Amino acid sequence: MSDKTKLIQPRTLKGFRDYLPEAMMPRERLIDAAKRVYRSYGFAPIDTPALELAEILTGKGSDETDRQMYRFLDHGNRDVGLRFDLTVPLARFAAQHVGTLGTPFKRYHIATVWRGENAQRGRYREFMQCDFDTIGTKSLVSDIETALVIHDLMREIGFEGFQIRLNNRKVLSGVLEKLDLADKSTEVLRALDKLAKIGREKVAEEMIAAAGATAEQADQVLKLAEVSGSNAEIMKQLEPLVAGSEKGEEGLSQLRDLLEATGAAGVTDARLAIDVSIARGLDYYTGTIFETFLDDLPGIGSVCSGGRYDNLASLYTKEQLPGVGASLGLDRLLAAMEELGLVEKVSTPAPVFIPYFDEKSLNTYLKLAAQLRAAGLGVEVYPEAKKLGQQLKYADRRGFKVAIIAGDRELAEGKCQVKNLMAGEATDESLDDGATAVIARIEKILASP
Amino acid sequence: MSDKTKLIQPRTLKGFRDYLPEAMMPRERLIDAAKRVYRSYGFAPIDTPALELAEILTGKGSDETDRQMYRFLDHGNRDVGLRFDLTVPLARFAAQHVGTLGTPFKRYHIATVWRGENAQRGRYREFMQCDFDTIGTKSLVSDIETALVIHDLMREIGFEGFQIRLNNRKVLSGVLEKLDLADKSTEVLRALDKLAKIGREKVAEEMIAAAGATAEQADQVLKLAEVSGSNAEIMKQLEPLVAGSEKGEEGLSQLRDLLEATGAAGVTDARLAIDVSIARGLDYYTGTIFETFLDDLPGIGSVCSGGRYDNLASLYTKEQLPGVGASLGLDRLLAAMEELGLVEKVSTPAPVFIPYFDEKSLNTYLKLAAQLRAAGLGVEVYPEAKKLGQQLKYADRRGFKVAIIAGDRELAEGKCQVKNLMAGEATDESLDDGATAVIARIEKILASP
Repeated sequence: MSDKTKLIQPRTLKGFRDYLPEAMMPRERLIDAAKRVYRSYGFAPIDTPALELAEILTGKGSDETDRQMYRFLDHGNRDVGLRFDLTVPLARFAAQHVGTLGTPFKRYHIATVWRGENAQRGRYREFMQCDFDTIGTKSLVSDIETALVIHDLMREIGFEGFQIRLNNRKVLSGVLEKLDLADKSTEVLRALDKLAKIGREKVAEEMIAAAGATAEQADQVLKLAEVSGSNAEIMKQLEPLVAGSEKGEEGLSQLRDLLEATGAAGVTDARLAIDVSIARGLDYYTGTIFETFLDDLPGIGSVCSGGRYDNLASLYTKEQLPGVGASLGLDRLLAAMEELGLVEKVSTPAPVFIPYFDEKSLNTYLKLAAQLRAAGLGVEVYPEAKKLGQQLKYADRRGFKVAIIAGDRELAEGKCQVKNLMAGEATDESLDDGATAVIARIEKILASP
Repeated sequence: MSDKTKLIQPRTLKGFRDYLPEAMMPRERLIDAAKRVYRSYGFAPIDTPALELAEILTGKGSDETDRQMYRFLDHGNRDVGLRFDLTVPLARFAAQHVGTLGTPFKRYHIATVWRGENAQRGRYREFMQCDFDTIGTKSLVSDIETALVIHDLMREIGFEGFQIRLNNRKVLSGVLEKLDLADKSTEVLRALDKLAKIGREKVAEEMIAAAGATAEQADQVLKLAEVSGSNAEIMKQLEPLVAGSEKGEEGLSQLRDLLEATGAAGVTDARLAIDVSIARGLDYYTGTIFETFLDDLPGIGSVCSGGRYDNLASLYTKEQLPGVGASLGLDRLLAAMEELGLVEKVSTPAPVFIPYFDEKSLNTYLKLAAQLRAAGLGVEVYPEAKKLGQQLKYADRRGFKVAIIAGDRELAEGKCQVKNLMAGEATDESLDDGATAVIARIEKILASP
C-alpha cells in the first residue's frame, strides 16, 4: 500500500509523445532515404545545439515564434531557448563559420525542434525538421539542383505519383510592379496565399480591403494566379503579363531555364509543374519557390517546400549570404504514408527469428545466428527456452518474416526447418557448409513479393 | 555604422558546440555502424521526448543529476526538465508501454541528452548517448547477446584491437557475504572502483575507514580483485573464493556459461576477458558487467559499458522489469579515433566532383551526374562557371576523390577526363553507353587503397 502511493505515474508531458518501434522504424527509413539523397548531391551533415542564447533565437522577431519558444535561465543565469526551427540556427551557424567553411556551402540538417503551441489534434510540441540548403551562391544551378533533390527524394521514399509545384517570386513581383502594387506586395501575397483555401472572391475582397487594390487590379493579380495548362502554355501566357518589367522577365526566364535543365535530367512536366499561385510566406523567399504534393493525397498539403532567398543571415553578419533550399515535412509525409497504407506494421528491424527450442542447443542457435548476420541477415534469438507456440506467437506479434526451427531431432540430422511466417510454409534445409542452404532459402523468401 | 551596432553576435551557448561537416560525418558513420549492429540482433529503435515532467526525471534521486538538470516551467506552468540520460526515460517508457510492447523487449535509443555541468576541457553540456537494452527477461542468453553485440559493434566501427572486460557482481557479493561485509558492500565497492586510479594501499585504507573492514578483510577483497591470468585460470582461482556462497557460485557459473557461449560464437579470450576489479557504479547493476577498452588507447577509459540489472522501473511500476544492456560512448570513441588518426579529414559526403567548366554544357553535366548517382556514386556539380583552378581548389579543400573534367573540346569528342584527385593522375573516358566507362574508372579509383 505504501509502496503504491509512492509510485510516480509514468506519462509523457502534454503535447509530447513516445515513438514505439512500429512508429520509429518508418521514421528512420524516411530519414535514411533523405540522407542518402542529400549525400548523393554532396550536401554534408551539420548539427547545432538544441539550446541557443535567446538573443539569437528572438532575433528573427516573429511574435509567434517568440511566444512559442521554450525559454528559461540556464545554470549561469543566461537567457536561453530551445530552437524552434533549423533556419535560424543555420543563419547563426553560417554567419559564425562561413570563413572556415567557404562557399558555396551545401548542408543538410535533420534535427528536433520545439514549439510550445496549442497542442491540437495531430500537432505536437516536439517534431523533426529535415532541411537542405546551398548557401553562398546566386547561381540558378543550385535552384535546379534543389528541384532534382526533391524529385529524387520523393522517388527514394517510394512515391511515383507526386508533383513538385514551381513558381518564381519575381514573376509575381514584376506583375505587381506593373500594376503599381509593389509597395502593397505583402498584403497582396498574404491574400493570394489563401486562394486554395478561401476561393477567388474572398481573396479579391481581401486584396481590396487590406492592400487598397482596385477591383480591376485584384482581378489582374488573380488572373495571373490562375494561368493554367502545360508548363509551355503557362509560360506563353505569362510572357505578356510580365513584359516590360525587368524583374518579371527575369523570373520567367529563370523558370524557363530551370525547366529546361530538369527536363534534360529526365524530370517530366507532370512531376514539375509551374503553379503561379504558390507564394510561400511573405518576405523570406525572393526567387524560385517549391511545394510538393502527393497525387493520392493532395489535401494533406505540401510535403516538401522551399525556395531561394537573398540574404540568410543579415541579423548576424554584414556578409550577404544568398541561398536556396527546402525542407522535407517528415511528420506530414509519415501521416500520409500511414493513411495510404504504405507503412508496414512491424516492430522488429530483423526479419529472421530463431526460437530457443531445444534447451541444450543454445550454442548452435547462436552460431547459426552469427552465420546469418555475416551474410547480412538480421536475426533475433529468443532468450528463453519456452514452448515453441509461445515463441512463435511473439514472432508473429513482432512481424518477423522467417523462423528457423531446430529441435534436437532436426539438429541430429544436421538440418533445420526454415519457415516462411508470411505464407505458413516450411522446408528442411541442411546446416552444412556455413548454412549456405539456409541463407539461400531465407533470401528467396524475403525477395518474394 | 548603425547597421553594425544592431548585428547580433553569432555564437553558441557556453558548453555547447556546432558540428561542422568534418566532425559530423565521422559521428554519423559511428551512429550508422551502431544502428546496423543493433538492428542485426533485432533491437528496435525508439524515441522519447527531450522534455519530461521534472517529477519523472528527479525520481532517480541523484543529487548530481538533479543539480545538473535543465529545469524550468513550460507554457502551462508545468515543472519540466531536459533528459540527462536515456535510462530514466527508458524506465518511464517501459513502465508506461510494457503492456503494449510485451516482453522480452529489445530496444536501442540514440539521442541527445543535456547536463549543465561545469564545462571543463572536453566536457560538453549536450552530448549523444547510444544505448541498447533487453528488458523483461532474466535469461543469461541476453547477457551473452549483449557481449556479442559489443564485440560486433567494435569490429563494425573498424577496431580489431579491443578488449571487453567482463565481471559478475554476484561474484563480489558472494565473497563479501563470506567475509561478513555484505551490509558494507556499497562502501567496499566504492573503494574498489578506484583501484586503477589510486592503487592498492589507498583502496585498503578506504575500506578500513569507510566500510569498517579489518585489514585482513580488505586484503581478501583486494586479492579477489587482483586474480589474473587467462579466463580459465581466473575461474579456477575464483572457485575456492566463492565456494559456499550460493550467490558467488551462481555468479561464477554465469561467467563460465557466458564465456562458453561467446567462445562458440567465435569470440576469443583476448577480446572478452574476466576482470574481477570492475564494479561499474554501486547499486544499479546486479549481475554481468561489461567495460570495453581499446588496445591502442586504454587510458581513454571504457568506450562501451553496461550490465545486468534486476529492476529497471521500480519508481514507476510495481511490475518487475529485469534487463541487460550497454551504452556506446560515442564522444569518447570519436575522440579516440581522432587521436589514433582513424578519422578522415573530409567535409563532403560525395566522392565525385564535376566542375562547371564549359558554360554551355550545364545540361550535359547534370545528366552525367544523374547517371553516376543512378550507379550509386555521390556527385557534386559546382554551381558557378568559374575558372577551373578555383573550382579544383574548392574540390581539394572539401576532400573530393575524383573530378570529371569536360570542356567543350572533350565533349565534342564524346568524352571526358576522369581525374584521380588523390594521385593527381587523369585518363580520358568515353561518355557513350550511359557513361559506363566513366563509372567503371571512378569505381576503380575509389576502390584503390
